[in-house]
Amino acid sequence: MTSPVRIPVAHPAPRRPHVVIVGGGFAGLHAARALRDAPVQVTLVDRTNHHLFQPLLYQVATASLSPGDITAPIRWVLRKQRNVFVMLGEVVGIDPASRTISLDSARRSITYDYLVLAPGGRHSYFAHPEWESLAPGLKSVEDAAELRRRFLLSFERAELCEDDAERAAYQTIVIVGGGPTGVELAGAIPDIAHKALRRDFRRIDTRRTRVILLEAGDRVLPAYPESLSERARRDLERLGVEIRLNAFVTEVRDDRVCIGDEMIPTRTVFWAAGNEISPLTKLLGAPLDKAGRVLVEPDLTVPGHPEVFVIGDAAHVVCGGRTVPGVAPAAMQQGRSAGRNIARTLAGKHRVPFDYFNKGDLATIGRHKAVADFGRFRFGGRLAWWLWLTVHIMYLIGFRNRVTVLIEWAYAYFTYQRGVRLITGSERAANRA
Amino acid sequence: MTSPVRIPVAHPAPRRPHVVIVGGGFAGLHAARALRDAPVQVTLVDRTNHHLFQPLLYQVATASLSPGDITAPIRWVLRKQRNVFVMLGEVVGIDPASRTISLDSARRSITYDYLVLAPGGRHSYFAHPEWESLAPGLKSVEDAAELRRRFLLSFERAELCEDDAERAAYQTIVIVGGGPTGVELAGAIPDIAHKALRRDFRRIDTRRTRVILLEAGDRVLPAYPESLSERARRDLERLGVEIRLNAFVTEVRDDRVCIGDEMIPTRTVFWAAGNEISPLTKLLGAPLDKAGRVLVEPDLTVPGHPEVFVIGDAAHVVCGGRTVPGVAPAAMQQGRSAGRNIARTLAGKHRVPFDYFNKGDLATIGRHKAVADFGRFRFGGRLAWWLWLTVHIMYLIGFRNRVTVLIEWAYAYFTYQRGVRLITGSERAANRA
Repeated sequence: MTSPVRIPVAHPAPRRPHVVIVGGGFAGLHAARALRDAPVQVTLVDRTNHHLFQPLLYQVATASLSPGDITAPIRWVLRKQRNVFVMLGEVVGIDPASRTISLDSARRSITYDYLVLAPGGRHSYFAHPEWESLAPGLKSVEDAAELRRRFLLSFERAELCEDDAERAAYQTIVIVGGGPTGVELAGAIPDIAHKALRRDFRRIDTRRTRVILLEAGDRVLPAYPESLSERARRDLERLGVEIRLNAFVTEVRDDRVCIGDEMIPTRTVFWAAGNEISPLTKLLGAPLDKAGRVLVEPDLTVPGHPEVFVIGDAAHVVCGGRTVPGVAPAAMQQGRSAGRNIARTLAGKHRVPFDYFNKGDLATIGRHKAVADFGRFRFGGRLAWWLWLTVHIMYLIGFRNRVTVLIEWAYAYFTYQRGVRLITGSERAANRA
Repeated sequence: MTSPVRIPVAHPAPRRPHVVIVGGGFAGLHAARALRDAPVQVTLVDRTNHHLFQPLLYQVATASLSPGDITAPIRWVLRKQRNVFVMLGEVVGIDPASRTISLDSARRSITYDYLVLAPGGRHSYFAHPEWESLAPGLKSVEDAAELRRRFLLSFERAELCEDDAERAAYQTIVIVGGGPTGVELAGAIPDIAHKALRRDFRRIDTRRTRVILLEAGDRVLPAYPESLSERARRDLERLGVEIRLNAFVTEVRDDRVCIGDEMIPTRTVFWAAGNEISPLTKLLGAPLDKAGRVLVEPDLTVPGHPEVFVIGDAAHVVCGGRTVPGVAPAAMQQGRSAGRNIARTLAGKHRVPFDYFNKGDLATIGRHKAVADFGRFRFGGRLAWWLWLTVHIMYLIGFRNRVTVLIEWAYAYFTYQRGVRLITGSERAANRA
């Protein structure tokens, strides 16, 4: 066994406290930014080189945007913050006792004074891990490219199909999970099938594409007020989406999805249900909830380890008696809180408990269709949709991405076409490597 | 053994002659378009769903453009041409005697009255197929994403390197082949390393990146006049590219490239040398040249088979005593010629031999650096570079792509940044599937 290489972190003498942040998503990035003026050396570790603007990932999956439009290199985002060192690597171990994390098959290790864990999560397949390859989820750029490949291939395969039943299965897209991601995916597909692709095929009528949205609960967008769930249901059904509520998936195969005794023949299933947190949280020896999220203290630290923060989707945070939802604004606020509390501790000040400020929730459904929940103000339709558009453009990181996304959207809005209908990475290519 | 399924091609009675085109590159697409008004049913088969604007592929590899910017779905390009049926599939067999091609592991077959073969080619590793995984080439979108991954990873790995020699190997990029692709790749990298990436890294000086261009002949751009080769060499060297002429690669390993006795330590090797034609040409029983290209008749047909055309990179065409080069304008002209000759034959007219009209050659090197060869007019520098830009934007298929590429280029021109610095498809992900 070779001893791990210790990476010397370049810091000016006298040695500054070392803050290690794991994850360059919304939470990790905002933690790093909050430490901009703090007397610390920050190391941000991520297994990808890019920050991903996850709220628009479904638009990559549905061929509207390129992956490059909604990603920015983490080191580019933080290039001006000279106390940050960005490191490409995968964290495989955490030892809170020795304040060490190990990376990349344990070949490297780093010690920390403060650790900020923001590893995010994946979808949960509810004890059916074998479903993942049949019904991929939507968390990473690679996931989105895989969904796009399957989505576009379903039309190609239907076009070549000789058998009516098989063709119908290729023209049926099932989405599991009626939360925001499931609703956005389901709402985006009819517009594409009915408008963008219609003239391109010769044998199939792409308008016959069935989109079926399965939700285990009794309404879509369960985190929203009931009136907006109802509005979203009506909007989706107007687009032609078939919604099945109280539908528990009991089987997924490459040619079907089963809900109890009912069998839906389909060749394309997307998973947008449940959450499963990065296995890293298990290494902390901290109390977890059912989904694997760490039950953190009011200052977002692990009980008994005031130097270890857990933020973002991996944290179970309770504010004012309510669990903070796993959305981007909450992750950003948690990142800022963790960063500021580290700075306050170093300045000899007391920590401030995290407080979630709900700016309001927006979910888009389709062209001119969205729902907005600002507490007292709840509305849907055109205004909500334009608001959703504006907010998402505003929050996109980097001037460049904003411009290209605006252009893609304007193009899609006026022409009904989709710009990035690219099938890449065939099964063959995937097997080759 | 199951008998192959015959795909019924929908055509109006009386039955129209069936033209099958294999390949949706420049040659195949222009053959289809030339048959727009002909009384035929066309089936275009490609194993990808997109037409690729290959001249800009090196910009995807060097993180300047997104794959979606330089691709367009073949069926979208041909959506208005109602006599074309586009089919996603891989041709695995051709039987000229029964006028049948078989697809997708021989599960399907199609009969043709006319066959237009435009399958393109790959790079040649000169009897060293084991080098392909170590030194990938640049022919497809997947290739470009792989080059981009390795290119960007080399900086990430150098940043984490403890060992000076190893770091130097990560900061050395070797490009094999001094033709247009090799020159474009080599010329694009210094600008990125010196400008775009410089402020993003903390430990390495990205300006120390060495770019080594290996050419087996005695000058770069061997197809160009000597004065322009000399100009290109001077321009590349001003950018800091090290050029090695008469350099035969004798070994490629994951940490080195050898030229005879000389060993160059490097972790990043790109292959832009030689051409190897699709194995499909071997199935024709026709005379081939050394590279596997079919020695076609003056009307681009296979000797003895006036109903089988071979065009594009897969054809060895001689015009006016000179071999027609494997460039996009030649492929387009050959496609048009094949299409028109089929239409002429059906109209009872004689065929017109193919004649290559050389519009001139343009190769770009770097910012404000390019060479142009228009026979009597040969020049380099700013004018050639702006001309190259204009021509490439003009020929890009689809209004949308032109706009997004213009924006990416304007962004890169004014900011020196690169917009698509995205590492996707890790080794891990590739192994998973």
